[in-house]
Amino acid sequence: MAEYEDTYEKVIELARRRGFVWPSSEIYGSVAGFIDYGPLGAMLKRRIEATWRRFYVVQEGYYEIECPTVGIEPIYVASGHVGGFSDKMFQCPHCQEFLRADHVAEAFGIPHAGTMSKEELHNVLVDKECPACNKVLGEVEVFDFNLMFTTSIGPGGQRKGYLRPETAQGMFVDFARLLRFYRDHLPFGAVQIGKSYRNEISPRQGMIRLREFTQAEAEIFVHPEEKDHPNFSRYADYKMPLWGIAQQETEAPAVIKSMREAVDEGIIANEYVAYYVAMTHDILCTVGFNPDKIRFRQHMPDERAHYATDCWDAEALSDRFGWVEIVGIADRTDYDIGAHSKHSGQKLEYFDQETGEHYIPYVIEPSLGADRVALAFLVDAYDEEVVNEAKKDTRVVLHLHPALAPYKCAVLPLSKKLNDKAQEIQTRLSGKFNVDYDDTGSIGKRYRRQDEIGTPFCVTYDFQSEEDGCVTVRNRDTMKQDRISIDKLEDYLTSRIDF
Amino acid sequence: MAEYEDTYEKVIELARRRGFVWPSSEIYGSVAGFIDYGPLGAMLKRRIEATWRRFYVVQEGYYEIECPTVGIEPIYVASGHVGGFSDKMFQCPHCQEFLRADHVAEAFGIPHAGTMSKEELHNVLVDKECPACNKVLGEVEVFDFNLMFTTSIGPGGQRKGYLRPETAQGMFVDFARLLRFYRDHLPFGAVQIGKSYRNEISPRQGMIRLREFTQAEAEIFVHPEEKDHPNFSRYADYKMPLWGIAQQETEAPAVIKSMREAVDEGIIANEYVAYYVAMTHDILCTVGFNPDKIRFRQHMPDERAHYATDCWDAEALSDRFGWVEIVGIADRTDYDIGAHSKHSGQKLEYFDQETGEHYIPYVIEPSLGADRVALAFLVDAYDEEVVNEAKKDTRVVLHLHPALAPYKCAVLPLSKKLNDKAQEIQTRLSGKFNVDYDDTGSIGKRYRRQDEIGTPFCVTYDFQSEEDGCVTVRNRDTMKQDRISIDKLEDYLTSRIDF
Repeated sequence: MAEYEDTYEKVIELARRRGFVWPSSEIYGSVAGFIDYGPLGAMLKRRIEATWRRFYVVQEGYYEIECPTVGIEPIYVASGHVGGFSDKMFQCPHCQEFLRADHVAEAFGIPHAGTMSKEELHNVLVDKECPACNKVLGEVEVFDFNLMFTTSIGPGGQRKGYLRPETAQGMFVDFARLLRFYRDHLPFGAVQIGKSYRNEISPRQGMIRLREFTQAEAEIFVHPEEKDHPNFSRYADYKMPLWGIAQQETEAPAVIKSMREAVDEGIIANEYVAYYVAMTHDILCTVGFNPDKIRFRQHMPDERAHYATDCWDAEALSDRFGWVEIVGIADRTDYDIGAHSKHSGQKLEYFDQETGEHYIPYVIEPSLGADRVALAFLVDAYDEEVVNEAKKDTRVVLHLHPALAPYKCAVLPLSKKLNDKAQEIQTRLSGKFNVDYDDTGSIGKRYRRQDEIGTPFCVTYDFQSEEDGCVTVRNRDTMKQDRISIDKLEDYLTSRIDF
Repeated sequence: MAEYEDTYEKVIELARRRGFVWPSSEIYGSVAGFIDYGPLGAMLKRRIEATWRRFYVVQEGYYEIECPTVGIEPIYVASGHVGGFSDKMFQCPHCQEFLRADHVAEAFGIPHAGTMSKEELHNVLVDKECPACNKVLGEVEVFDFNLMFTTSIGPGGQRKGYLRPETAQGMFVDFARLLRFYRDHLPFGAVQIGKSYRNEISPRQGMIRLREFTQAEAEIFVHPEEKDHPNFSRYADYKMPLWGIAQQETEAPAVIKSMREAVDEGIIANEYVAYYVAMTHDILCTVGFNPDKIRFRQHMPDERAHYATDCWDAEALSDRFGWVEIVGIADRTDYDIGAHSKHSGQKLEYFDQETGEHYIPYVIEPSLGADRVALAFLVDAYDEEVVNEAKKDTRVVLHLHPALAPYKCAVLPLSKKLNDKAQEIQTRLSGKFNVDYDDTGSIGKRYRRQDEIGTPFCVTYDFQSEEDGCVTVRNRDTMKQDRISIDKLEDYLTSRIDF
């Protein structure tokens, strides 16, 4: 095995080699911030999306909509993105490299660089070296760089267009249509899974900081004051570690609380936010994420987006990047609907026929970054197991939950002579789930190939199968083998891969 | 019922009102060429994509990949899009409107306007009136307008980027990675479902000419000369009407041929193209498209893309737009892989270990426009049925195939007093498929609401249900009712909605 610095690097190598993730447009020299999902990666991502839908669409009953990725300027003027969605950057006067001011300052150990003003950053950077060319920066101008990709719609530069920085705005802009669809009843939710874009200044973190990425966002429209979730009982007793503002301020560890306690003690702002914090934990752990490698961190007041009153990040631990945000849960207040109402001149509000009240609903938003979640699952699932120390035999295995594994099983004929019968089994199972087929090399090697891509079960068809109508099913994690009747194979597998 | 010009207009009105398709960013004045899918439309589109995957991914065994929508310039220089992906346009000297030259000429009855040169179009337009302001155009300059949306990647305009005009190029650029994934064996296929973009000059055809649209594309990499499809027997005897070049030239009607005959008689270039022509027909008809409203038309030599040797369009008949292309099946030859090999300097070729041959594979491409297909199914499914002539009672019904219908069934309690039990049924069925619930208004009105959105079955829970454990299942198309035991309801429905 080649030597790699850390698990992240090993995972990325495996991901490239086996077709999970490839550098995008590699033959032309790939560009930072864009990736291609190969066959296995696309399957993994589809399954993450399917898991998310199972909770938000099936369990919660929220409807999915689909809005364009290209939006016109008024949307993003109203949302505040044209005015304020920017990072502070500077250009090195020596090597002309564009750099993110806060990131460079942070790398020199400057605390709170992310919340500093342009002037403060300028003062901090003056005696630091450029990370690209190592010369002392001196006087550099720190300026705002808007992170939206721009384009032009129609000929003659007729209309300015933006690639959406979040899927959320589509649901806000459609609020009145959605309200009518829900027959004028609150609360309701709308969800969207799709591409979003951020024109990052100099992304150097592989799959972590992408310029084009997939979000799964839910927007739940609720009464401004009535923040009690109708199904709160589902998660009221759900306990998990919370790293709130108070704990962060005193450098105390996370506290383990039930959602009922968290709301009652004022750690989480309201039941709605708590409900989706718990549900996010539930989603991740249901499909196998190691609970010890997730934490929920509350945004500090100076770190919160301008529109939010309370915001929690689900963070996954990575040996390369430390704690990485993979999901955000925010109470966005009435900021967005209010802004669109004002800018469009349309009355966007809810009229409660029972109380006669008119109001702009508040929006609770759980927002998941599908690419980061996919990477987090790969890193979490990666393992090297010593099988035989004397022979220096180590197997690489992805302990992916069966619900996420690209293939649910692989069919392996012991000999190519058995291909016909083995293929029959593969064809039959393929109607139900994704099945790989491999007839090349020793069985041991084939097992290892499947281990490496996380296939939970290998089905071996051997010469005895011809006589006893049974196959050997080998478990990826335990490496134990069961002899199973072919008739019962589908049930055997199905009962072990459903969640 | 309000008066509308044609079925298209009725369908669009229904689609807006019931949440299939909404004008995008309507509150700011929507922009031509962009649409939002509401809850029901998004479900319909997901099902069209799922149907397509069932054929291409499950039946054919082709893997799906996912590439970014933003691509760097070298990709689209090599593909020919930077140089040649343009429409001829002019600006009216009087009203300043930008117009597509060939469309204006066509509207004046000029034949073959689509294949005319800029000069020819200029000469034809000189005495015509501007369709926007009605003044005689006079001398106008006809020029090429590139249809790709452009953007800029990174700060300081570092790199030019394009929004992809087709998903295909991602699969071509990844050819070497894909070949390795398929263990260096040809033929293989890769598929992609995702957004593509064309900056249309002045799209005026609603859902037909979108600037942002969804494609489902398959690229099948084959030997340049061996165009016999390994599974041709599946469709060899499949008969369908083909409107080939010869028939079009002699203004003869389409000929009905089996795929075997079509290839043998040289109507379709090879088995690969014929296979996907037949499979396209099969997909559309399997989920209920009226075969009388689809035709397969071969591109005339002067109409074919520069890269194609043979190209067939599946066209759907619309009362508003006539025959509209919804799927294209092309033999793209070795044009794309060859061009990327040349421009990138990477050897992109296949080495056949058995024959020692090196070659650039040919690519067969079936490409489906998901938005147009969704619209075509809505238009095809739309019907107004006279229920009672004397009472002028007409019901609007979408005869969508159950596989495409947003909801598979609706649960309707006869009285709100029966809500608890009825909701239990809804919850149980929701684990299996999408179920609507409606407890408002008379049963007759609720049936009509479901008819209008294509729900194939309505399940009514009544007072007798409490005693006999049965519900009434009403069939959308026949309006007949069956009394079914609640225990057997899931099986009853499942057997009628699977395909």
